[in-house]
Amino acid sequence: MGTVGGGTFNVLQRNGGEITRRTGREIVVAQVAQRRPNPACDMGTTNTSDDIFAVATNPEIDVVVELIGGYEPAKQLVLTAIRNGKHVVTANKALIAVHGNEIFAAAREHNVVVAYEAGVAGGIPIIKALREGLAANQINWLAGIINGTGNFILTEMRDKGRDFADVLKEAQELGYAEADPTFDVEGIDAAHKLTILSSLAFGIPLQFDACFTEGIGQVSQEDVANAEALGYRIKHLGISRRAAEGVELRVHPTLIPEKRLLANVHGVMNAVLVDGDAVGPTLYYGAGAGAEPTASAVVADIIDVVRGLGLSADSRVPALAFDASQLSDLPVLPMAKVKTAYYLRMMATEKPGVLAQVTKILGERGISIEAIEQKGHEANQVPVIILTRSVLEGQMNDAIVAIEALADISGHVTRIRVEDLDG
Amino acid sequence: MGTVGGGTFNVLQRNGGEITRRTGREIVVAQVAQRRPNPACDMGTTNTSDDIFAVATNPEIDVVVELIGGYEPAKQLVLTAIRNGKHVVTANKALIAVHGNEIFAAAREHNVVVAYEAGVAGGIPIIKALREGLAANQINWLAGIINGTGNFILTEMRDKGRDFADVLKEAQELGYAEADPTFDVEGIDAAHKLTILSSLAFGIPLQFDACFTEGIGQVSQEDVANAEALGYRIKHLGISRRAAEGVELRVHPTLIPEKRLLANVHGVMNAVLVDGDAVGPTLYYGAGAGAEPTASAVVADIIDVVRGLGLSADSRVPALAFDASQLSDLPVLPMAKVKTAYYLRMMATEKPGVLAQVTKILGERGISIEAIEQKGHEANQVPVIILTRSVLEGQMNDAIVAIEALADISGHVTRIRVEDLDG
Repeated sequence: MGTVGGGTFNVLQRNGGEITRRTGREIVVAQVAQRRPNPACDMGTTNTSDDIFAVATNPEIDVVVELIGGYEPAKQLVLTAIRNGKHVVTANKALIAVHGNEIFAAAREHNVVVAYEAGVAGGIPIIKALREGLAANQINWLAGIINGTGNFILTEMRDKGRDFADVLKEAQELGYAEADPTFDVEGIDAAHKLTILSSLAFGIPLQFDACFTEGIGQVSQEDVANAEALGYRIKHLGISRRAAEGVELRVHPTLIPEKRLLANVHGVMNAVLVDGDAVGPTLYYGAGAGAEPTASAVVADIIDVVRGLGLSADSRVPALAFDASQLSDLPVLPMAKVKTAYYLRMMATEKPGVLAQVTKILGERGISIEAIEQKGHEANQVPVIILTRSVLEGQMNDAIVAIEALADISGHVTRIRVEDLDG
Repeated sequence: MGTVGGGTFNVLQRNGGEITRRTGREIVVAQVAQRRPNPACDMGTTNTSDDIFAVATNPEIDVVVELIGGYEPAKQLVLTAIRNGKHVVTANKALIAVHGNEIFAAAREHNVVVAYEAGVAGGIPIIKALREGLAANQINWLAGIINGTGNFILTEMRDKGRDFADVLKEAQELGYAEADPTFDVEGIDAAHKLTILSSLAFGIPLQFDACFTEGIGQVSQEDVANAEALGYRIKHLGISRRAAEGVELRVHPTLIPEKRLLANVHGVMNAVLVDGDAVGPTLYYGAGAGAEPTASAVVADIIDVVRGLGLSADSRVPALAFDASQLSDLPVLPMAKVKTAYYLRMMATEKPGVLAQVTKILGERGISIEAIEQKGHEANQVPVIILTRSVLEGQMNDAIVAIEALADISGHVTRIRVEDLDG
């Protein structure tokens, strides 16, 4: 009965009549397990327990809703519920991304459903879209803003010229970011969600450990302004693409053209862009977090599960969109084999021939330059900005090592990936 | 086997393997009824017939897919299929909007499903989102760009300063607009789709005849430019809102703030913005027409129906989202009772006191002015542009009659509605 638990309880109470009009049946909260009461909820005569495992064994309960978050005790609760023949609805992306393969296997064994729409992009029904709405398609790629805190920080940095640390502090005060913001800022939360989306899109097992993850902590105000001047915006994206040799699975700051709808998703809002071979590009936008937006997805899952109570397994949509026996062993590509374009920023000594050395290093590795710009000088050092065309990340890693070794380049080369996302 | 029929056939052939991976079963095209072959399709050994009713009575067929369009013979085909115990998938918005109540009643009687995701916004799974993804919500309102031809015309008018007639001609040459563009340009196609979305959102019977419909034929290049200068864009929207006394159901050109995602949906693309009480605003974007985008939705429906073959009626999602016995008699509001803001443009004699007469008329009817602007003069006539705050349309009708009666106002007052759409 934390934020999402309270929201779910309140939505079920407030909209119970509308839900019954839709489903022809009443959804009853048979028991609530809570460590402490949520002051936002009027529990009335609801049966409560301070033993969370009580709900997993309560014979009156058909569906256990897990809204604890984190790995434990959530995992034990979910597995106990499954073993007791109960369907499970959860908003727990970390649990699904990391332990989903095991949890879904247990659910198949016990012939129950585990639903997790609320785990990705809050109230946006993106899991339903991928599992059902786009089921006719071979998915080519998807890209999403799937962490509201990160997007809030980048939006403030751009709109108000503020620094990362300053905005992060405000996000924590506003309650958007946790006291420990690591999961948001370092991209781990986004990687959990992307891992799930990628499995749903391509029919591969969940492989959180294979997800490349880079946070937004290294994005400077200078990069935000440079991107803007070049007609781009920096967004923290999760990207997954089906390439010839495998699946790309990566979370990182990304320059995208300012005209794209994704570039215009501001503040704490989320959006996911999915490109299918038949449908082309489609986009899903909404609140990615918060009590009631997340509850909207939790309750939609409850309704789906309740409507399907008693269905045989082959009338259900598979947990990971594809039949469990049909998951593909298409590998997740290592980052060195991912092809993308780059924004590079470096400090060069202001003297003739330095740019020639840099462009020579790029050219020798087959890296074409889209644009190059030398900005106003600071003492005898000048910032150089380069936009490249698409190249294998391995080639770029190699080029950056060589550029950083140049005597006339000082410090590290900043590298931010660039995606066109033209569906 | 027209455009969408051919697309559906090709998607089923090309992605059959991927679909079987998802559903655990094979979808077989048992028979195709066609007037003439579609050169885009390799029919192989597919059983074809030139009698469209053959598929409705063929005992080998579980699901009849109606992709003829229009009212007849589509209606007779669908009803014949239903009476023969076959499930139906259709992309026919005109048929559902106008005859849906009758068709769904027949489907209930014969215990079959009629699915129509492709009828609204092409490949965007908006019907699934409203029926299932947002089922926990009381929907407050929805607004959509749901006719690609209209949006293409308005986009070209804005981007290139072109005139309506000129762009319409090009749209016809490109195949976006029909030879008879009435349904697109006059908003009838959008009204069909909005009628369906409104029933799904609010649980009311389909009431196409009650939909207020205004096309884009009266939008001038001058209005497009004025809107732009005021920070707005003109989009042809379908809007449905739950008000205290009933449901708004209206299709018309609309000024919306240029920062809204809907204002940035260009060309033939569609998007629908839905505001729910728990989830807040969510948006769904994608291709609203075309062979394969529409086929994507048709095939998704086929997959849903096939997965649910043999399900009892109470495990199915109701055709109009709400249980048929629970549809509400909340009335559709007449336009005079709709509250919205307005953009007004009129030609005034350039002399003192004219603006005072106009603003007096507005003030007397409780209409507040947000902005007023007198543009550069043409001879002794000057265009006057007024943005008002929200007011009942009945009051505005009354005010416009009074303004047009002023001796110093020549011709008609142009009126375009303004919506903030801030979710």
